[in-house]
Amino acid sequence: MPDHPLAPGPVTTRGPVRIVGSGLLGASLGLALRAAGVPVQLADASPTALALARDVGAGTPAADGDPEPALVVVATPPDVTADAVLAALAAHPGAVVTDVASVKSVIAAEVEAGAGAGGDRYVGSHPMAGRERSGAAAADADLFAGRPWVVVPGPRSRPDAVLAVRSLAADVGASPVTLGAAEHDDAVALVSHVPQLAASLVAARLNGAPEAALSLAGQGLRDVTRVAASDPLLWATILAGNAGPVAAVLHALQADLAELLAALDRIAVDGPLAAGSTGPLARLIGAGNTGVARIPGKHGGAPRRYGEVSVLVPDAPGELGRLFTEVGEAGVNIEDLRLEHSAGQRVGVATLAVLPAVVEPLEAELDRRGWRVVAR
Amino acid sequence: MPDHPLAPGPVTTRGPVRIVGSGLLGASLGLALRAAGVPVQLADASPTALALARDVGAGTPAADGDPEPALVVVATPPDVTADAVLAALAAHPGAVVTDVASVKSVIAAEVEAGAGAGGDRYVGSHPMAGRERSGAAAADADLFAGRPWVVVPGPRSRPDAVLAVRSLAADVGASPVTLGAAEHDDAVALVSHVPQLAASLVAARLNGAPEAALSLAGQGLRDVTRVAASDPLLWATILAGNAGPVAAVLHALQADLAELLAALDRIAVDGPLAAGSTGPLARLIGAGNTGVARIPGKHGGAPRRYGEVSVLVPDAPGELGRLFTEVGEAGVNIEDLRLEHSAGQRVGVATLAVLPAVVEPLEAELDRRGWRVVAR
Repeated sequence: MPDHPLAPGPVTTRGPVRIVGSGLLGASLGLALRAAGVPVQLADASPTALALARDVGAGTPAADGDPEPALVVVATPPDVTADAVLAALAAHPGAVVTDVASVKSVIAAEVEAGAGAGGDRYVGSHPMAGRERSGAAAADADLFAGRPWVVVPGPRSRPDAVLAVRSLAADVGASPVTLGAAEHDDAVALVSHVPQLAASLVAARLNGAPEAALSLAGQGLRDVTRVAASDPLLWATILAGNAGPVAAVLHALQADLAELLAALDRIAVDGPLAAGSTGPLARLIGAGNTGVARIPGKHGGAPRRYGEVSVLVPDAPGELGRLFTEVGEAGVNIEDLRLEHSAGQRVGVATLAVLPAVVEPLEAELDRRGWRVVAR
Repeated sequence: MPDHPLAPGPVTTRGPVRIVGSGLLGASLGLALRAAGVPVQLADASPTALALARDVGAGTPAADGDPEPALVVVATPPDVTADAVLAALAAHPGAVVTDVASVKSVIAAEVEAGAGAGGDRYVGSHPMAGRERSGAAAADADLFAGRPWVVVPGPRSRPDAVLAVRSLAADVGASPVTLGAAEHDDAVALVSHVPQLAASLVAARLNGAPEAALSLAGQGLRDVTRVAASDPLLWATILAGNAGPVAAVLHALQADLAELLAALDRIAVDGPLAAGSTGPLARLIGAGNTGVARIPGKHGGAPRRYGEVSVLVPDAPGELGRLFTEVGEAGVNIEDLRLEHSAGQRVGVATLAVLPAVVEPLEAELDRRGWRVVAR
């Protein structure tokens, strides 16, 4: 039996940690801290939610006579986060206080306005983690593993408070990243909120489309619209809390769209050879080329290039598993992969990203074993 | 050694087939037909391209004294396709003629205007296949396997001509789908051209963004922008050839975007509690939910629900391969899968789609083998 993939190491977070709000994020954080041996006190306005978080093992409900917490983590919905932070600063005058809301500027301003001298113990944060399901029932000690955790110190935050929040992130397996509140909000507008909206805008166009059109859908449409299957109420709250930065990115996108539409409308009337008509089309696709190339690769920094091996996989039980088994037998590590298939087809194409040096040997080995290797 | 995944069956296409244009599509079609024992005559305006297609085995360059073709397939760039179809109808008065261009209405109108009586031998078509590389050097006999191939009869097309084109599609492993020219053009605008443009519009916003923002990129941004890495010139030509239908979808999307931006701008000024401000946000996300649910699943028809098993995979050589090997050993077929990882992290999450009945046994087995199974 192999070593556990994520054997816990020593942690530096000093307890007890009090977690206010025992939903998905709060309960997952409790589970991760408990697994590391840190005592956790849980609080929630809902007794039912609190009992559920206790029952999944996320911590012990806070009670009179508890030892004072060294750290309070506010994990409530964003629209009540600032009030909960202010209450925690007042109730626990020796504690560092942080929150995990996905918007930061609005909360930082409300905390600064209300905190007085204790505001130097507050440091905002945002773990880039979540899932489709919510509540403590979906909690997972590994929710934060490998995800960025943005730490957002205010101008008055004490260095030891910042360090405590960075340590918390690292102790649950996340990668701490320090940003200012405005920087954070601009960044998530760009890499999370606007992509979500673009997916929804494209997916919304599929309502009312003929089924024959949808039957032509390929991997491109599937990829572009995957995140469109998100919770409307949750996203309305997130977007409302970051309206300014999201609107700024969308206004720029709207300007690009208007230029594109002007060109298409001109072509629809005058034909593709009208002067200057196709230039805007090629310019937009070109700008997309350079933009997508800036997304960091698997290991951070510049995107790393892997070689690719594409294999036809019959749509029959066991075939994909057999492929992976045989790739494993060939001693090759799969760095990344994607599957393509269309409606009603009898085969799919599995594209395996592997180190460039093993592309040719792997193709030869798979060919030898009777797989149909295809050029992509 | 297993049977070949795609052992060739008997074909119904009657040769010789003449392929006009020996780029990626023409040469791939030639390879697939040759593999099925059908004689192929190749033609191309470029002697170099013709020689390359011959050298990869796609067919024999057409010559005086060749037997008359039963079927001519025009695989030239879209802007010269109609002229090539008209030339083929005139030169081969006994042949069925088709083309493989990705736009259909414009070409059908030009052919109808110029063909005279022979126009009843023309049937348009569009195999939904392609790849990033172009030219005969990237040709692949399996390019069409499992892809939809749209067959577009005109009002005058003879039934035997339609049957010949459907048979051609089936003989190279594609799934023939019959649509009218306008239906086809509307469909590809919706499921291919507009998603491409949405990806490019989002990716274009990443130019000039701070690296810290890009370091927060997760799987959502990667999925939405993947197709943004496409050839600008090729796409300018495709979009110009389908400008009307693409513009129609984009104008509707632009209206949704304007409504969304009005709500965000109102919230940015008046706050999220302004009357009626969050409604448009939730409405758009909700419309995206219902739209994305209409995309057919792997096997066609309504999306089929699989269960999912998510597993933490350390970012070390062999780990992903080991996971797939062990899933294979457990006798479980992987129906679909995706990988999530963020910049700089030391683990990723592999989510395997499997039949619902095997979710729990597989989770138990992987847990027993020391994998960290996570709830998603």
